[in-house]
Amino acid sequence: MKQEAFSVSTVPTPSVILDRQKLIANCRRMAARAAGAGVKLRPHLKTAKSAEVAALATSGQFGGITVSTLAELRYFFEHGIRDMTYAVGITPGKMPVIEGFIEQGAVIRIVLDSAGMVDELAARESGFKGRVPVLIEIDCGGHRAGVAAEGVELLDIARRIAGVPGLVLDGVLTHAGHSYHAADAGAREAIAVAERDAAVLAAGRLREAGHACPTVSIGSTPTALTGIALDGVTEIRPGVYVFFDLAQAALGVCSPDDIAVSVVATVIGQHRAAGHLLIDAGALALSKDTSAGEFRQHVGYGLVCDLEGRLLDGMHVADAHQEHGFVRCSAGTIDFDRFPVGSRLRILPNHACMTVAPYPEYQVFESMDRPLVQWSKTTGW
Amino acid sequence: MKQEAFSVSTVPTPSVILDRQKLIANCRRMAARAAGAGVKLRPHLKTAKSAEVAALATSGQFGGITVSTLAELRYFFEHGIRDMTYAVGITPGKMPVIEGFIEQGAVIRIVLDSAGMVDELAARESGFKGRVPVLIEIDCGGHRAGVAAEGVELLDIARRIAGVPGLVLDGVLTHAGHSYHAADAGAREAIAVAERDAAVLAAGRLREAGHACPTVSIGSTPTALTGIALDGVTEIRPGVYVFFDLAQAALGVCSPDDIAVSVVATVIGQHRAAGHLLIDAGALALSKDTSAGEFRQHVGYGLVCDLEGRLLDGMHVADAHQEHGFVRCSAGTIDFDRFPVGSRLRILPNHACMTVAPYPEYQVFESMDRPLVQWSKTTGW
Repeated sequence: MKQEAFSVSTVPTPSVILDRQKLIANCRRMAARAAGAGVKLRPHLKTAKSAEVAALATSGQFGGITVSTLAELRYFFEHGIRDMTYAVGITPGKMPVIEGFIEQGAVIRIVLDSAGMVDELAARESGFKGRVPVLIEIDCGGHRAGVAAEGVELLDIARRIAGVPGLVLDGVLTHAGHSYHAADAGAREAIAVAERDAAVLAAGRLREAGHACPTVSIGSTPTALTGIALDGVTEIRPGVYVFFDLAQAALGVCSPDDIAVSVVATVIGQHRAAGHLLIDAGALALSKDTSAGEFRQHVGYGLVCDLEGRLLDGMHVADAHQEHGFVRCSAGTIDFDRFPVGSRLRILPNHACMTVAPYPEYQVFESMDRPLVQWSKTTGW
Repeated sequence: MKQEAFSVSTVPTPSVILDRQKLIANCRRMAARAAGAGVKLRPHLKTAKSAEVAALATSGQFGGITVSTLAELRYFFEHGIRDMTYAVGITPGKMPVIEGFIEQGAVIRIVLDSAGMVDELAARESGFKGRVPVLIEIDCGGHRAGVAAEGVELLDIARRIAGVPGLVLDGVLTHAGHSYHAADAGAREAIAVAERDAAVLAAGRLREAGHACPTVSIGSTPTALTGIALDGVTEIRPGVYVFFDLAQAALGVCSPDDIAVSVVATVIGQHRAAGHLLIDAGALALSKDTSAGEFRQHVGYGLVCDLEGRLLDGMHVADAHQEHGFVRCSAGTIDFDRFPVGSRLRILPNHACMTVAPYPEYQVFESMDRPLVQWSKTTGW
């Protein structure tokens, strides 16, 4: 199908459309933030899972990225990227794949947060092939993973890493995922400060104890886009900023007009009695993520735009079955004559990472008079 | 990776495990129901998206299936299936793909519910290649799609279909999706009766008006597994019964022990202070579907079993980020010493259709002493 010249009016539905100009602007905004704060930008490609997006996100940067699956690691290695942090807690079962890439010359940092996992890694019969840089994960208040910056575990883990041939302590990593629930800019900035301070404190303690700690890595999109000073931090790892989404707009991190990603869908039915349009983008095509609903009403599974990308007042995907989306209007009744069966709509997603994940490729939009271009991506694990 | 002999202890995580014996028992149960009711079984393969599962589900049946995406249509055609109903409202843009398979000898039924869509199809410049059988969708109370069985639209649509060369009215189709919210067996049976009666009434009205109506198609797993008589119905189209899931168990349609599908995950961290285990199966690996939560507490994103598949009292996936699952225990505190980092768990999903969709293949379990076998599936659209 890649040989056909599709437009948003003819591309098979559902498809994910990327607005290239918005994507470039979003990448520039984060690059400027990193430059202004004097830190490296190691974009998290778990959002886009795409080499073409990685090229834009790393343009003018040092070239390292962050990933969250072995599938992403394989895909980006095949696309020439040689510096990756696998930012999900490591397990011994994943080491053969990672070491395979290290043996081929890649630098792959792994992440852990327990002495137990250091012991599990050390106990592997195969030993280590090459030297594996390790980041200790720090809990900066999100209470997902990580050890306390001020606790005894941090130094215990560092000591054990130093005792395992093949492991090299590279530094600390934290992620303020709880910034996605910050109710206002003040709360978001407080979380950003806590994220920075936790990482810097942990790094300082490691250095005092005699460990080298070259990497001090923090980041989420909401915290990265505050204006706080980042003294002591060496890199940020935001991800969703490349696309943005309704959740980020609800947080005030971007405007809805910055959102570079949408799902194009076809109207497959009108149920005038029930008051909805049916579209061929449902729970798989949009995901069941409803995160923007934490902050505003009538978002449902996404906000509805016309084919040119203009928001349609009050129209949202109110319910979603596997392949059926239900479009309702919170600003009165739907103008059914405007949206006949066979017409098309574009849906802005709640959470871009969740929505784009299952798609096999992107359809990249430059302007209404140019055909869509296909960009590759990976899926699965 | 398919050459390696994996077990549930060594397969990469997250992976989807299918229990072949449970799958066979589930298929036999539905086959017996269809035989007992004297109707054909046209299983909906939107759940499994797999040729090997289709072979079990159609074993002893007439061989037709139901699909919900063009990707499924392509995949099952390539795997030799020649009788498919594409059970999502058609749009003109999908006709070239469908007609391509019809030209190659397949019977592909399409579904619509408006005179407007008949007109859209008739207006296509390309005309029709071959004869396309059409089912008119009936609303049996779920108010998703479909026309009323007793209304004037039904006959109007039939008349218009009869006037379009290339379209052939084949009958009626309905789906009682609202059975997924039936609070008890009585409510479920009432919905099953309404589903049957709507389809039979609509078919009768079409025949009275002079239209042939060979197909009277109904079905959802919850309604199919009531014991009501199905006089006047010609086929049922249940899907999720092949795997079952926590939502079906919550409805009383199956027991948790019948669930043939689970996600195997590795413990990647223990956050003792916060009271959870972290696993490497998160919102993408499990989906964000929480449907069983409509009926019972402490299900979250899935119930947790040991590696042999035995439910662990009170343990459930309480929260899910993109690649992180948070396992908590509603029956006291987690026994952290029992689940060290690197150990494995299996998660029963809320809604099997949503959970398995993004996986590239199945890992099929026969017994603990035999290696897993890989079965193919399709993904995307």
